[in-house]
Amino acid sequence: MSASNPVSPLAPKTTPSLPRIAGIKLGAVEAGIRYQGRRDLMVAVLPAGSIIAGVLTRSKTASAPVDWCRKNLARGKARAILVNAGNANAFTGKLGDKSVEEATRAVAQALGCARNEVFMASTGVIGQPLDPAPILKAVPGLLKAAREESWDDAAAAIMTTDTFPKMATRTARIGDGTVTINGFAKGSGMIAPDMATMLGFAFTDAKLPPAVLQKLLTDATDKSFNCVTVDGDTSTSDTFLLASTAAARHPRVEEADDPLLADFRRALDELMIELAQLVAKDGEGASKFITINVTGATSNGAARKIGLAVANSPLVKTAIAGEDANWGRVVMAIGKAGEKADRDKLRISMGGVRITDNGQVVPNYDETPVVKHIKGSDVVIDIELGLGRGRSTVWTCDLTHRYIDINGSYRS
Amino acid sequence: MSASNPVSPLAPKTTPSLPRIAGIKLGAVEAGIRYQGRRDLMVAVLPAGSIIAGVLTRSKTASAPVDWCRKNLARGKARAILVNAGNANAFTGKLGDKSVEEATRAVAQALGCARNEVFMASTGVIGQPLDPAPILKAVPGLLKAAREESWDDAAAAIMTTDTFPKMATRTARIGDGTVTINGFAKGSGMIAPDMATMLGFAFTDAKLPPAVLQKLLTDATDKSFNCVTVDGDTSTSDTFLLASTAAARHPRVEEADDPLLADFRRALDELMIELAQLVAKDGEGASKFITINVTGATSNGAARKIGLAVANSPLVKTAIAGEDANWGRVVMAIGKAGEKADRDKLRISMGGVRITDNGQVVPNYDETPVVKHIKGSDVVIDIELGLGRGRSTVWTCDLTHRYIDINGSYRS
Repeated sequence: MSASNPVSPLAPKTTPSLPRIAGIKLGAVEAGIRYQGRRDLMVAVLPAGSIIAGVLTRSKTASAPVDWCRKNLARGKARAILVNAGNANAFTGKLGDKSVEEATRAVAQALGCARNEVFMASTGVIGQPLDPAPILKAVPGLLKAAREESWDDAAAAIMTTDTFPKMATRTARIGDGTVTINGFAKGSGMIAPDMATMLGFAFTDAKLPPAVLQKLLTDATDKSFNCVTVDGDTSTSDTFLLASTAAARHPRVEEADDPLLADFRRALDELMIELAQLVAKDGEGASKFITINVTGATSNGAARKIGLAVANSPLVKTAIAGEDANWGRVVMAIGKAGEKADRDKLRISMGGVRITDNGQVVPNYDETPVVKHIKGSDVVIDIELGLGRGRSTVWTCDLTHRYIDINGSYRS
Repeated sequence: MSASNPVSPLAPKTTPSLPRIAGIKLGAVEAGIRYQGRRDLMVAVLPAGSIIAGVLTRSKTASAPVDWCRKNLARGKARAILVNAGNANAFTGKLGDKSVEEATRAVAQALGCARNEVFMASTGVIGQPLDPAPILKAVPGLLKAAREESWDDAAAAIMTTDTFPKMATRTARIGDGTVTINGFAKGSGMIAPDMATMLGFAFTDAKLPPAVLQKLLTDATDKSFNCVTVDGDTSTSDTFLLASTAAARHPRVEEADDPLLADFRRALDELMIELAQLVAKDGEGASKFITINVTGATSNGAARKIGLAVANSPLVKTAIAGEDANWGRVVMAIGKAGEKADRDKLRISMGGVRITDNGQVVPNYDETPVVKHIKGSDVVIDIELGLGRGRSTVWTCDLTHRYIDINGSYRS
């Protein structure tokens, strides 16, 4: 099925090469869980002493692996992350919990660690039991195949309807030390993360207490994956895990607000925004990448809610797909967001061209440059509410015929 | 543009014939506001002494005619309702208010009534100034053409992307008297009413105090238009007005909860549900009508929120369009609604066939009857939450390629 999807026209021209992080080994094999002829099982093996932070979906029908991660994240210790593609193991009852138990046990036994140090994530079809047998059979070969340089294989093995793997890397200074952050993510449909994302994994060697790692991850999520949407449909499986080997040498840091962490924060934020944007660029059927900048809202939360209302509006998304500069639909979406807006203060621009002012279209509005902008693949909408200092940027893609093609027959 | 849209396959086979209500005259003319070769301006003239109730959009960017109606509804008196199609007069600044002023003044002067007894509604493109000149020019002919039997013409003149006119009629007993309720509505896209609808108008001769009429209308809206969605996009123009000539002879009623009103309530609820369903059946690009029954929620409000989350999910709607019985997406949508749900108590049925129980698919689930059901044009999803006594029924349509065709080029 995903084999038939051509690569998104918004895919980046080049894929970054992720450097090694000493002790972190990635493996990927073909376990035959659902797909044929491709790798669908991934492991990230972490050295002893590694710590972990995570954000998870707030869905009330969260998957069994999400429940498992939620249970174990508080301990902050990790030795492996196991991920399968093709079956979400969501709404699979007690059987689903049992599949997680067996899969994580197999990895824990092979690594000689506690089972609660093995995290798991799954995406794919909802409601079909995940048979643990192919996973148990594949685990020995999977762990044997794990290498420090196999980032590409890992990023590819977790894809479902994705048309390209999504990777990013950054380095950051912490005092006189330098640390690395590598990350990869998957996601293309059912994207409207709520305090989390589809699936994303980041790895670093920064030596930070688990609580600090968690705070930095939560803050970065709020600026990245919580600001991206494809279709407003929040997944049962959203999971972003950030693991650290804690092996880097740099001054000791105890608090998340330590000024020493400024550069690490910047790097983590940048990496997660890059991954989140890649998810929107691989939105199912996407032909245009859309950035919505909201300023002047009563709060940052209000700005994000307005941005997401515009980003999730099927009428805005289909108009942009049709290259119709129908800014009236942006007005409609702002109006339905439920946050404060004042018609006569609202200013809307597309492609940097001011369209409205004083509650109406600007005098002698010339649509020509806006039409030219919307014909490109990178559409920018600026919304100034003129009410306060709240701001947010939200990313999405357009809604095209391919979204319907892909989703009318996902299971077949 | 609408001329090119074929009639929805979900359109009813027959259109009801609406009886006269003494004193109410309907007129429709071709004013050339936006469309060519069709009537686009409608008036309902009400006899002296008529009263009115209404519900309006909660959009923060409501149109100028909505603002005008909101201002005057409290008085409860009406002599005319003027409606144009093709231009929503929304986000048109002070100029938009001025257009309403001039149009309502022309009608008021011709009828010899106060201007605040002339209500107005407009739908169509957002953000383009509504030139009052063609309306002013058309008003004399419009009023002259008004007839007690012209319900069909009125219902057709208010359509935009609608593919068929939407009409309903009921009679009700109040004590020993009989009253009539006629109604018509329009709406096809940008449908997710919030305490109101796209455009709907109902007329009766029941002799009720304005406050009672308003209460009955609000209650009926909550069971009808507030339970229908096409695309989750709440319009700037949603307006439903209920006018009465108060000319019927029946026992005097002073309170909305008077048992004498039971049959009138039933009739009004039925009429508004019928109109709301017709709007979903004419949803842009609709090929299937979808009914979502939610029971066992913690409250009626929670049930409706869950029903709307399922009804607005693009993944659920595209799966049904593709005739894929992908019930896992229903699970996902329930999970994202934000209301309480318990995986192990949740029961989902499609076409009356139980699919899940105990947090997973039922043993030996046979998809055959569900697939047969979903290939029909009338799809029913039952969701039992098993938590409380809250219930709600929500109506929507599927999401097809035609929705994208229609909305990628609405303005062109």
